[in-house]
Amino acid sequence: MDFAGAHILSIEQFERGDIDTLFRTADRMEPFAQRRRVTRVLEGAILGNMFFEASTRTRISFGSAFNLLGGEVRESVGAESSSLVKGESLRDTARVLSGYSDVICMRHPQAGSVAEFASASRVPVINGGDGSNEHPSQALLDLYTIERELQARGRHIDGLRIAMIGDLKYGRTVHSLSKLLTLYRNIRVVLVSPPELAMPEAYVEALRTAGHEVEVTESLEQSISRVDIVYSTRIQEERFQDRSQADLYRGRFRLNQAIYTRHCEPNTVIMHPLPRDSRAEANELDADLDSNPNLAIFRQTDNGLIVRMALFALILDVAHLVDQYAREVPWFNHRNR
Amino acid sequence: MDFAGAHILSIEQFERGDIDTLFRTADRMEPFAQRRRVTRVLEGAILGNMFFEASTRTRISFGSAFNLLGGEVRESVGAESSSLVKGESLRDTARVLSGYSDVICMRHPQAGSVAEFASASRVPVINGGDGSNEHPSQALLDLYTIERELQARGRHIDGLRIAMIGDLKYGRTVHSLSKLLTLYRNIRVVLVSPPELAMPEAYVEALRTAGHEVEVTESLEQSISRVDIVYSTRIQEERFQDRSQADLYRGRFRLNQAIYTRHCEPNTVIMHPLPRDSRAEANELDADLDSNPNLAIFRQTDNGLIVRMALFALILDVAHLVDQYAREVPWFNHRNR
Amino acid sequence: MDFAGAHILSIEQFERGDIDTLFRTADRMEPFAQRRRVTRVLEGAILGNMFFEASTRTRISFGSAFNLLGGEVRESVGAESSSLVKGESLRDTARVLSGYSDVICMRHPQAGSVAEFASASRVPVINGGDGSNEHPSQALLDLYTIERELQARGRHIDGLRIAMIGDLKYGRTVHSLSKLLTLYRNIRVVLVSPPELAMPEAYVEALRTAGHEVEVTESLEQSISRVDIVYSTRIQEERFQDRSQADLYRGRFRLNQAIYTRHCEPNTVIMHPLPRDSRAEANELDADLDSNPNLAIFRQTDNGLIVRMALFALILDVAHLVDQYAREVPWFNHRNR
Repeated sequence: MDFAGAHILSIEQFERGDIDTLFRTADRMEPFAQRRRVTRVLEGAILGNMFFEASTRTRISFGSAFNLLGGEVRESVGAESSSLVKGESLRDTARVLSGYSDVICMRHPQAGSVAEFASASRVPVINGGDGSNEHPSQALLDLYTIERELQARGRHIDGLRIAMIGDLKYGRTVHSLSKLLTLYRNIRVVLVSPPELAMPEAYVEALRTAGHEVEVTESLEQSISRVDIVYSTRIQEERFQDRSQADLYRGRFRLNQAIYTRHCEPNTVIMHPLPRDSRAEANELDADLDSNPNLAIFRQTDNGLIVRMALFALILDVAHLVDQYAREVPWFNHRNR
Repeated sequence: MDFAGAHILSIEQFERGDIDTLFRTADRMEPFAQRRRVTRVLEGAILGNMFFEASTRTRISFGSAFNLLGGEVRESVGAESSSLVKGESLRDTARVLSGYSDVICMRHPQAGSVAEFASASRVPVINGGDGSNEHPSQALLDLYTIERELQARGRHIDGLRIAMIGDLKYGRTVHSLSKLLTLYRNIRVVLVSPPELAMPEAYVEALRTAGHEVEVTESLEQSISRVDIVYSTRIQEERFQDRSQADLYRGRFRLNQAIYTRHCEPNTVIMHPLPRDSRAEANELDADLDSNPNLAIFRQTDNGLIVRMALFALILDVAHLVDQYAREVPWFNHRNR
Repeated sequence: MDFAGAHILSIEQFERGDIDTLFRTADRMEPFAQRRRVTRVLEGAILGNMFFEASTRTRISFGSAFNLLGGEVRESVGAESSSLVKGESLRDTARVLSGYSDVICMRHPQAGSVAEFASASRVPVINGGDGSNEHPSQALLDLYTIERELQARGRHIDGLRIAMIGDLKYGRTVHSLSKLLTLYRNIRVVLVSPPELAMPEAYVEALRTAGHEVEVTESLEQSISRVDIVYSTRIQEERFQDRSQADLYRGRFRLNQAIYTRHCEPNTVIMHPLPRDSRAEANELDADLDSNPNLAIFRQTDNGLIVRMALFALILDVAHLVDQYAREVPWFNHRNR
């Protein structure tokens, strides 16, 4: 694909070469994200950060990524934005708002809304999440994290062994990640969930068609024993039609350090799309994993920043100019403490 | 008037020469609004964008206009801001907030509130809409659009023929536009509305006193047949004391391409203050007009950006410096696609 | 203390020498706050302005202070932010959000929350108010104002005579100010409140232990007659367990120009943490004091801006570089009118 001027609406637009282009650009953004250097390449450019549904961390991650390239951010959040569109078509909104900025990031609760908006926008639009449909930058930062974690262990995405755990039926992140994995070779995917929340068959089929090995199980312990990555997601009780069913699974997909030590290979990476529910009754990741160096959940959000910087740099066609507009950082660099 | 340091509270402060100054400044802002060039003349300046009532597009238009001149924007929206003033006088609020910025744009639901605020502010204040009272930048962008559309057709505001359609009783935009038109010569105004929503007599009188020809009608078809501009506004059902009256007028002021083709002169310009209600039952502009090149509604919002840039440049007295602080745009310019 | 990289969580961290460092840095910020010059020393830096509880003026004061040093601001306000933390620990939130910025200012309704957040943050955190606990920048701007007002009268904080009036039981600002005063010498403090809202004994003891003279009274007139500073705070009716008690005190702690003229020494300074309730029934400061040049309440908020600039400059270790990155202001300087 040609990134310059493109909308980023779905991970389906990416081929493997595009992912490579994006990830190698992301690598070059890291020094700026870590404030070892400052670049001003987008000085004067404006991001329209249009969150028709609240999502603090995604919104701020996009905004900071744009600031880190030197640009300005105008934004709108939640309730205010939705009142805006009372009776106004998304196309009208897009025509108007796209006159105010150079690129738009948009989140909206309705599936397909971002694509409709993009069709009338005069500037490139990045999908920041449209309901149950797509959230491409999340999938890309997950895959980028997998690549980096594997690299540090002398491995590659080709040949990956990964367990996906939790709500695989409604979990947008595991769907998108599954799709991206079909671009790679020789992968083993272990799917762990209550049967009620199993991965939809279409995703399983796509993985198998790509030549990957897919195993389905209900046993957490078994699934995590021979994988490189454990990707855990939240099970929301309200997903069960019969709430008493939820009790059956309470705690069964919760990973803690003791289980990790007993069952995982050394260096198995733990991922999670965050936020993580840290309350005792949650079916997720225990806080006692926080001192485990293989817990990659905060490296994921850090990687999100640089993947989003890379998306902006490619869409606005300045990736090759980032260093030319670079400067030294005169302030105290906390990341070097 | 002397723009430098002035509050912009009402269109009544403008004489014809002021409008000319503003519009010729706006012309010079266009290359920056279209990102053909970047200017940093206001680098380090701060706009306080104080929206005590939500209005996404007006807020973002002002904010982007300030960013396009190189300045920063601090802002406040809706509910949060109004809790701020519990028991605090507007004058106190103004004294405090005006210490934080170089210029303030303020929207507030209460008529007269912005003028009161401005009286205690230590920096210039632009009225971004104070209830039913004034919204001067909207009136100015409407008039600027009229001038530009006419120019493209070899005409001028002097000699204009315009139809104003819809809710002329409560429509703040048509009131303000009417007032501005009294600064010009030899204009023909056709007023089209249900009698319940007729233009208040004071505005009609002012137009006649200025020597203009005013015609009042209930017939859409007749009104649009020999005008340069059709300015359509929304009729809100809740404006009718007797709601059943609203049904009588449903669809009677709705313009679509078929009616346009049958009744309008070629090149008749269609305007609307937006947002446009695109639902089937709305009494406004049909989406089938979108491919009509004379539909100027999105050129209006684009013009809003450059009129607001011009207001900031004049108030902060940097209009003559904008080019001196200009740079090339290194990123992909989507407007040149 | 070493400011570089430090969290600012409580006024308890400051020794007298630290206050001096901060205030002398604040002095050097004033030309930039007044837009006599612009500095770009933090160009490229990002402030995460995280207001988990709405507070328009504190939020905008911090944001503007950071802009005035050349930095960018990403922010979050109120309801949106609190939904963010549903089930997520403050430590997780801190780990994620601190990856997006160079310094964080945080307000949160829960006492102790900002310290907990800071313990997991990878960048310095400034407490912008955590419930009933601390709001250190407010206390510092109050003390800085006292110093400046006294200086203009040829006096110093050592030797200060101050009356604190109103709700001394729950008033966070008078508690913090009392603590700071223990760092100085030879101070006379007059405490004026209903007995139900008296200053907690611990604060009184600390003042006495520091060698200060403390007088407790219920008489406004008597308390203000021989002091340099009158520091008035709001009495909220809901603080009285028996609401009828509130009526007993209505108007008894209200200061107006007539009382000031009759009882105060000339040049007695009037302070208030703002917002001031200007409604007739409020127990605070009359609007008729607004033309009294000794009313310092708006100088307080102006000083807040430069104290916050100084905090940022010291924490990010650029105080010595501010002038090196300075430029002339090309726009109309309203403060010089």
